[in-house]
Amino acid sequence: MTSIANSVRCETFSFREVARDGAARAGELQLTHGTVQTPIFMPVGTVGTVKAMRPDELASQVEAQIILGNTYHLYLRPGLDVVRAHGGLHKMMGWDRPILTDSGGYQVFSLKDLRKIREEGVEFQDHISGSYHLFTPEKVIEIQETLGSDIMMAFDECPPAGADEHYMRESMARTTRWEKRCLEARTRTDCALFGIGQGGTSEKLRREHLEELGPLPFEGMAIGGLSVGEETQAMYDTVEFTTPMMPDEKPKYLMGVGKPEDLVECIARGIDMFDCVIPTRNARNGQCFTSRGVVVVRNAVHKEDLRPLDPDCDCYTCRNFTRAYLRHLLKSGEMLGPQLCTLHNLRYFLTLVGQAREAIVEGRFEAFRKRFHELQAEGGSR
Amino acid sequence: MTSIANSVRCETFSFREVARDGAARAGELQLTHGTVQTPIFMPVGTVGTVKAMRPDELASQVEAQIILGNTYHLYLRPGLDVVRAHGGLHKMMGWDRPILTDSGGYQVFSLKDLRKIREEGVEFQDHISGSYHLFTPEKVIEIQETLGSDIMMAFDECPPAGADEHYMRESMARTTRWEKRCLEARTRTDCALFGIGQGGTSEKLRREHLEELGPLPFEGMAIGGLSVGEETQAMYDTVEFTTPMMPDEKPKYLMGVGKPEDLVECIARGIDMFDCVIPTRNARNGQCFTSRGVVVVRNAVHKEDLRPLDPDCDCYTCRNFTRAYLRHLLKSGEMLGPQLCTLHNLRYFLTLVGQAREAIVEGRFEAFRKRFHELQAEGGSR
Repeated sequence: MTSIANSVRCETFSFREVARDGAARAGELQLTHGTVQTPIFMPVGTVGTVKAMRPDELASQVEAQIILGNTYHLYLRPGLDVVRAHGGLHKMMGWDRPILTDSGGYQVFSLKDLRKIREEGVEFQDHISGSYHLFTPEKVIEIQETLGSDIMMAFDECPPAGADEHYMRESMARTTRWEKRCLEARTRTDCALFGIGQGGTSEKLRREHLEELGPLPFEGMAIGGLSVGEETQAMYDTVEFTTPMMPDEKPKYLMGVGKPEDLVECIARGIDMFDCVIPTRNARNGQCFTSRGVVVVRNAVHKEDLRPLDPDCDCYTCRNFTRAYLRHLLKSGEMLGPQLCTLHNLRYFLTLVGQAREAIVEGRFEAFRKRFHELQAEGGSR
Repeated sequence: MTSIANSVRCETFSFREVARDGAARAGELQLTHGTVQTPIFMPVGTVGTVKAMRPDELASQVEAQIILGNTYHLYLRPGLDVVRAHGGLHKMMGWDRPILTDSGGYQVFSLKDLRKIREEGVEFQDHISGSYHLFTPEKVIEIQETLGSDIMMAFDECPPAGADEHYMRESMARTTRWEKRCLEARTRTDCALFGIGQGGTSEKLRREHLEELGPLPFEGMAIGGLSVGEETQAMYDTVEFTTPMMPDEKPKYLMGVGKPEDLVECIARGIDMFDCVIPTRNARNGQCFTSRGVVVVRNAVHKEDLRPLDPDCDCYTCRNFTRAYLRHLLKSGEMLGPQLCTLHNLRYFLTLVGQAREAIVEGRFEAFRKRFHELQAEGGSR
């Protein structure tokens, strides 16, 4: 086992598996700001707000248990001084439940021509002012500890889809060195730290990387580098052969995924945690996810459609508003349209993972999965 | 008294004066969808949504008692077929408290080059598709009855500021004929109908018009044609000499006004009802109204300002968020910024009229008014 100079560990963290049904499992994650029932979906709150949602709505109506913040964006705006003045991200944004933050790696690598990778870290020009910055493993841990994240993510490189094996190996080796430096840089005993395994869709590379990362004292482990353009089936296959390589006593987090069917299929393959911008971003364009498939509520077919978005949904939107009214709001550019569609989409995602968990606990996950796909096919894309 | 062929009256409507303090008065307005305590401010919900607000927030957190909808906008979008399919505006927008709708006159006359005034009504091209439409007194009553408004407004011409006396007299005479046709066109006994007096800032013209309109069987009377560019003092003076000309047993509504100080000053002059886009529109630009004056929360001075918008406010925004966070949201273009600022501004307006009412009932309105202005001056514009 690789030795890590620093012995700081998260003292408030624990994870236990509650039930297992096939490869799917239900768990309970204890974090500084509360308990999370897994499998769980984490709404994305990039700059300290889940777009269009009040935090109290998010808690009491979406029943979100944990949300995600983006280190890169928060570092730039409002900046660490402002977050520090508030006493951390939770207090600044009025959210007292757990927060996971990414490491900023994904955003920084997306800058392509504006960044330079060195052993020390990544130098980049930001997308707002064009100023120069250096993100190192030590720096991103310092930022995330300032944010006060319940779960910090290690600094990794997310290689572009289709990178060759030579580049992948070099990148993964550097990522391993960076992730060890993250472990060594941590100082807070109330912030957990998750490692991130790379390796694209290659079983061999995934195994190599996880053999290195698995023994390290991370509180959880993530699959990075998926949902970057590969075929859906390749993503499912990769998840299927990767989850058994991950430490079973730790939560398994699939980063940046996905649509409702992706959640169900990856829960079936052993994933505990998800995050994705899809429910919030698509809601703003009027693309709504329901138990009967996708409803594109802007479409003319809904002009006088008096049905709710989803007959099976208990959210405020579905209890009070018709598709015709939602269409009107979106067509008129009224903020309430994105607000109501976001509320519904997030509630649907949280309901879905909650139902999956219940099915796992009750040993009927396969029946749940089958019924889910049947109902999705029933509606079709409208 | 002018005879009106039609004897349809609103059977669900009543108004009673509860207390009077100087010219200021407190009242109670009974409407089809509930009771309204006056003086009252009505948030504007142009196309069937008070911008950025959920109707349940508006009811339980802003404590709005009645809102305003715009006939012109709703007629164009979503259109009457859609509203009718829902069974009226209340059901479509999920708002079960009273709604007042304007007659569309103001919007139609604002189209300037795109409209032609005839005795029959106004022909215009709409601002969305450029199609031709004809609004007549009969048509706007039909539209408002389809919307199912608790209070409909009569069809009037709002003459441009600075129109000469000759034009004013012609316009007012035509408006009187139109308003009588509105009374004759009504068919529903659960929709009240208010008349609108014009006359610019001329005491003589205001008197002439109200002498004609006053005896007509409207349930309430409005002052139109103010807040169209005249000096604030001229507006106050006009309100002061006009309210005594209005029937005392009916509510007195000042259309399109105003800022917090305008509300206080016009309550002092006998006004019972107000509506204005200022609290909602300005909120979206980060201009917030508080008990200590205006706070422009986008300003750099609030970058690390940990204070709430208003130390005296009990709204969700003021209880949970700092000015620094609100500034961050607005600067980042996040929807939550307008949402939270709108919630605060509306709550502040509703709190203000509620406090004014309490002061009137307790016979200490002058002290309230004095203290209001002192506190406003304390903060100043920041």
